[in-house]
Amino acid sequence: MFEQAETDPVMEEAEFTGIEDRLRADLLLAQYGLLRRADKTVLLVIAGIDGAGKGSTINLLNEWLDTRHMRTLAFSEPTRHERRRPAMARYWDVLPARGHLGVVFGSWYAPLLRRALKKKKRSGPRWDAMVDAIMKFETMLAAEGVQVIKLWFHLSREAQRERCTTMLADPDTAWRVSLEDLAVADHYARLRDASKAVVEATQNPVAPWMVVPSADIRLRIVTVARTVLQAFCKPALQPLVTPRLPQPSHDSLSERDYTAKLSREQYDSMLPHWQGRLSRAVRTKAFRKRSLIVVFEGDDAAGKGGAIRRMVHALDARQYRVVPISAPTDEELARPYLWRFWRNIPADGHITIFDRSWYGRVLVERVEGLTAPEDWERAYAEIVEFEHQLAEHGALVVKFLLTITPDEQLSRFHEREQTEFKSFKITDEDWRNREKTPQYRVAASEMLARTQSKPAPWHVLATDDKKLARITVLETVARALEALDD
Amino acid sequence: MFEQAETDPVMEEAEFTGIEDRLRADLLLAQYGLLRRADKTVLLVIAGIDGAGKGSTINLLNEWLDTRHMRTLAFSEPTRHERRRPAMARYWDVLPARGHLGVVFGSWYAPLLRRALKKKKRSGPRWDAMVDAIMKFETMLAAEGVQVIKLWFHLSREAQRERCTTMLADPDTAWRVSLEDLAVADHYARLRDASKAVVEATQNPVAPWMVVPSADIRLRIVTVARTVLQAFCKPALQPLVTPRLPQPSHDSLSERDYTAKLSREQYDSMLPHWQGRLSRAVRTKAFRKRSLIVVFEGDDAAGKGGAIRRMVHALDARQYRVVPISAPTDEELARPYLWRFWRNIPADGHITIFDRSWYGRVLVERVEGLTAPEDWERAYAEIVEFEHQLAEHGALVVKFLLTITPDEQLSRFHEREQTEFKSFKITDEDWRNREKTPQYRVAASEMLARTQSKPAPWHVLATDDKKLARITVLETVARALEALDD
Repeated sequence: MFEQAETDPVMEEAEFTGIEDRLRADLLLAQYGLLRRADKTVLLVIAGIDGAGKGSTINLLNEWLDTRHMRTLAFSEPTRHERRRPAMARYWDVLPARGHLGVVFGSWYAPLLRRALKKKKRSGPRWDAMVDAIMKFETMLAAEGVQVIKLWFHLSREAQRERCTTMLADPDTAWRVSLEDLAVADHYARLRDASKAVVEATQNPVAPWMVVPSADIRLRIVTVARTVLQAFCKPALQPLVTPRLPQPSHDSLSERDYTAKLSREQYDSMLPHWQGRLSRAVRTKAFRKRSLIVVFEGDDAAGKGGAIRRMVHALDARQYRVVPISAPTDEELARPYLWRFWRNIPADGHITIFDRSWYGRVLVERVEGLTAPEDWERAYAEIVEFEHQLAEHGALVVKFLLTITPDEQLSRFHEREQTEFKSFKITDEDWRNREKTPQYRVAASEMLARTQSKPAPWHVLATDDKKLARITVLETVARALEALDD
Repeated sequence: MFEQAETDPVMEEAEFTGIEDRLRADLLLAQYGLLRRADKTVLLVIAGIDGAGKGSTINLLNEWLDTRHMRTLAFSEPTRHERRRPAMARYWDVLPARGHLGVVFGSWYAPLLRRALKKKKRSGPRWDAMVDAIMKFETMLAAEGVQVIKLWFHLSREAQRERCTTMLADPDTAWRVSLEDLAVADHYARLRDASKAVVEATQNPVAPWMVVPSADIRLRIVTVARTVLQAFCKPALQPLVTPRLPQPSHDSLSERDYTAKLSREQYDSMLPHWQGRLSRAVRTKAFRKRSLIVVFEGDDAAGKGGAIRRMVHALDARQYRVVPISAPTDEELARPYLWRFWRNIPADGHITIFDRSWYGRVLVERVEGLTAPEDWERAYAEIVEFEHQLAEHGALVVKFLLTITPDEQLSRFHEREQTEFKSFKITDEDWRNREKTPQYRVAASEMLARTQSKPAPWHVLATDDKKLARITVLETVARALEALDD
């Protein structure tokens, strides 16, 4: 594809004039079709050699399309605040809703291209890991209704130089020529090789690259417009899902020991001890460069709230946030399911505690039939990748599954109904969920088996004894923080 | 109030023990009541002398309440990015939804307090302007269902010093003592006078200050808890609205000259001229420290879209954003109506074009009866204040009202129905709106009269001739930008 682009092919004016109007009308119609169906988001990634006309093409797209339903997402070097969250967070933050087009400048390819400029660095574990992260990110977006289309603008050395010269000669366009544009000619071979390496490594069946021959403005425009048109009209490219290996419907939770207990005296002396250790562990120098994400899942009335309350007692309110997960808002529903969790991923030095989490995908959504099996089945791998990205950035991810015996749950439900300021905590839904305990246990057992990972470990706690549960949570989090390297 | 706090009053342990449990239960119940009613947001502003126990009291509140439905909003010095948007934007950005509690640390009072530390600066136009901006901000929040409660923590010099000493002696609390805390004793009188000046100047009937005697931990806790409890339970304090002066139902729009025209030749030479000037005007050094907000309102089919398209032709897609305003999302509905516009206020060097805007409050919401008269009537003053804040920061606000004759509108509606890629633009709603043209004109005329302002001027364009309309928009925006000081 690069070789073909370097021949600087041309579209004759007559041919262009013959198709321009129809193409514009079709594009606009297709954009409104997308807006009406709202069945996917289209993300157009713009990359390529400097001085190839990326900017002007995008300006033209904004003019041809209805600019109100598209958004240009331009990224430069991450700010200090952006560096304090996982690398992909800033792309997630601004993801447009379904029905809309996002045009991405300075995308997640910028770091990979920077690396590719050094020939020796185009392989090896770091390179592979970067490529892998990008492929997984795009594949997940595709599966969730975000169609990523990637355009690499390319042209010959001579054409690039000529384009710069022409633009410099006109005061109305001279400002568009940057020092980077002018430097291209001197490093052309290296840039081309790096470009090829990036495009070849990240050619993704569900997020394909197209190399746009960029020397001729008419051909450039038509190529881009036709690509966007196709993206608007065609159904989203869906990744092939590897069928989930069948898993016996096994309930591993009922086999646990629910009888362990702490005495009141033990609890009363352990509570301040572990709260003190937790409180000190989040004030270390090491933690200023890390973040903490704590996930609570588990049975209704298993003591999530009480455990969280004991935890926050040891924390400064300015440092943490508790995020309860219930029904998504309509802005959240219009985007991939992980979006609402990305929104709440803390910056370094901060803590987010999720009271229920992204695991709802493979628990409540599975058991209640809210999500199709093919969608929750692929979620295991997506979640593992998500947590891997958090851990890569240095976030400490600690996950708790709290589980109680049916008898204990029943007695807690009755207690809640009878205590004035707890009665809001018990609803008809809780009673309905209770009837589905066996299904929830099977789902939770499979979740544990498939999403247990070293960087984001699960801790399963049998919480018939609340005191033991609270101390275990505090101790687990404190020890994990204490183990951080300075 | 300050004198009383400086006597360091105390609550006996017996009294505290007698009420603690009941108070906690009541607080929690009241919080759930608020969550269920979702009729207002409660914002608790925390301020006061350093080392008075602000932080620890808020940590305690987080423990007593259900921390999942409250959020600590801690602000320190604005970041570089935050400085590039109007000062209040960062408070708007994180405003919790109705039903929730936000605890604000380092609030909009920080700059005022800093100023108040110099006695001479506690009066004069700048001081008055700062006080006025705060009062208007809080009053608007109150009118829109955000109850602001402000707590000023205060204690005697001796008690403050003693508290620091005690905390320093215990390794578990020593870290809480900052250099600022220790410096308080040396500047006590100055701090107290500044505090008094701030509290007295900003005592707001709908967002009252309460001075919390802070020497005694029990009294401090109980005072804060009771204040929060009241805020949860009582209906929101509503500002008194000055009745709108009656305005004759006058239609000033029909009196305009709708016959002016540009020839095709004139248009073809003026269009590139003004696009060029606009394009240069947004690339000046002066504009890097300013921002541009363009508002389009007007009749259906009056040519908003076409004018916007000609404008963006001259702009770089990375620099601007077009925001179409239609039905609010549920996250937007849960907050004051200006929230969704604040979200989209650009940073310096950037441009937002609103295709319909906050003026919907006094146009469509008034005419269609979507908003009660007392609410849209106060919106005039709120909008003027909003635009004043934008202009104060240095944003250039340019507002266009595009209006056409009923005959011209009819012929454009028919044309749209017959053109394939325009037919999506015409709906039953457009025909219904057309029948209400007289009411819309009266509303628009009153809007013009009440919201015309020097920092955010209205430009009313009779747009029966599209060419003239487009050139006028380009010229108006370009000239406004060219007039910016370097």
